[in-house]
Amino acid sequence: MAIKALTLDTGGTILDWHGGISRAFAAAGARRGLQADWHEVTNEYRRRSLKGMVGQVHPAFNFDDVHRRVLDEVIAHYRLDALTAEDRDVIWRTWHALDAWPDFPAAQARLRRKYIVASLTLLTTSLVIDVSKKNDFGWDAIISCEMIGIYKTRPESYLTAAKWLQLDPSEIMMVACHNFDLNAARENGYKSVFVKRPAEWGPSGPPDPAPNPAHDLIVEDFPELATRLGA
Amino acid sequence: MAIKALTLDTGGTILDWHGGISRAFAAAGARRGLQADWHEVTNEYRRRSLKGMVGQVHPAFNFDDVHRRVLDEVIAHYRLDALTAEDRDVIWRTWHALDAWPDFPAAQARLRRKYIVASLTLLTTSLVIDVSKKNDFGWDAIISCEMIGIYKTRPESYLTAAKWLQLDPSEIMMVACHNFDLNAARENGYKSVFVKRPAEWGPSGPPDPAPNPAHDLIVEDFPELATRLGA
Repeated sequence: MAIKALTLDTGGTILDWHGGISRAFAAAGARRGLQADWHEVTNEYRRRSLKGMVGQVHPAFNFDDVHRRVLDEVIAHYRLDALTAEDRDVIWRTWHALDAWPDFPAAQARLRRKYIVASLTLLTTSLVIDVSKKNDFGWDAIISCEMIGIYKTRPESYLTAAKWLQLDPSEIMMVACHNFDLNAARENGYKSVFVKRPAEWGPSGPPDPAPNPAHDLIVEDFPELATRLGA
Repeated sequence: MAIKALTLDTGGTILDWHGGISRAFAAAGARRGLQADWHEVTNEYRRRSLKGMVGQVHPAFNFDDVHRRVLDEVIAHYRLDALTAEDRDVIWRTWHALDAWPDFPAAQARLRRKYIVASLTLLTTSLVIDVSKKNDFGWDAIISCEMIGIYKTRPESYLTAAKWLQLDPSEIMMVACHNFDLNAARENGYKSVFVKRPAEWGPSGPPDPAPNPAHDLIVEDFPELATRLGA
């Protein structure tokens, strides 16, 4: 069946969370005279946050809540207790003000001329709205797992998105820089595109950089994706 | 508190359903040599469809399903049985291809520069995506009652939209051409704007055209709304 919609992971695929959050940590640390490997602190923050959110079913919290809770945990773990309540608030709010990877906004506009282009994300609806206004994204829809109530990589998250789009899963391509998300989408009938994001985790590189060769497309960046899809 | 978001009824406030659906009925009727007051048929179709959707809690159906079921009912009621399965399909699909009221798209772009502008609608997510691509709308988010699971005018529909926007209801203005929707939003803490749509129900005029004077703003059209809100 022909592809009619692209659903895009947003956290690492569209947003440079490592750059934004590690800079926020470093700035707060400098204010309090703290030394740390801010890249490592940032990646541990991300790992623990993802672990708290992936696969949740009707949680009483959302990803912003997890980011707030885990921030305190990570600060305690690295003995960065000199970071004040105000510092923590500034770091936490940075999630809603992240920059996009620069290849995305113009390519998104190309893709939207031919396809429905929707965010399908673990992040909160409000976060995606805020970063989209800041970075000039235009979505045909934001379909957050917060709205679905069931989080990736649970089958219901992909199947509900397809239901709301009124498409068969085989008419939808999941786009992400992570095999775990794409593999789960494929298991639920979606097509898959792996977009490489070698800088997603900063200098240490991503934990799972090699695309599963089963993906329908593997691309270096979003302009290549638009070109490969004829958009 | 300052207004940060506008949530917009979409069916009658943004889309000219009467014009689109009455023309689809008239064209199908002409193909089959049928005479009828297509304006009346269209309005009865709309009345019954709304009745089947407003206030639903976790229904097993969505507004497109209701449109399909009620279409057959209305056709039977008016003894228009000569309309074929194909005719019915064409009329039904017209919902996803409605035209916007012409004052909306440019005013929406103005409003989005200052506010979050979201659809808050009884209509399906897919319908809003389709008409938005056709008419060049740009939403910061589509928040359909289909996604919420609980339909306007139930309090949970307005309160869930506010939760997803991470705003206090008093920071949100509901925008609609219907008192029933605006009054319910107000009861849940929203501000309200009545936009006049004297042609919404075709020649017979809307059933409740006089705005409740309690609304925070009453405007003739969307350009006036953008100007009054300083956008």
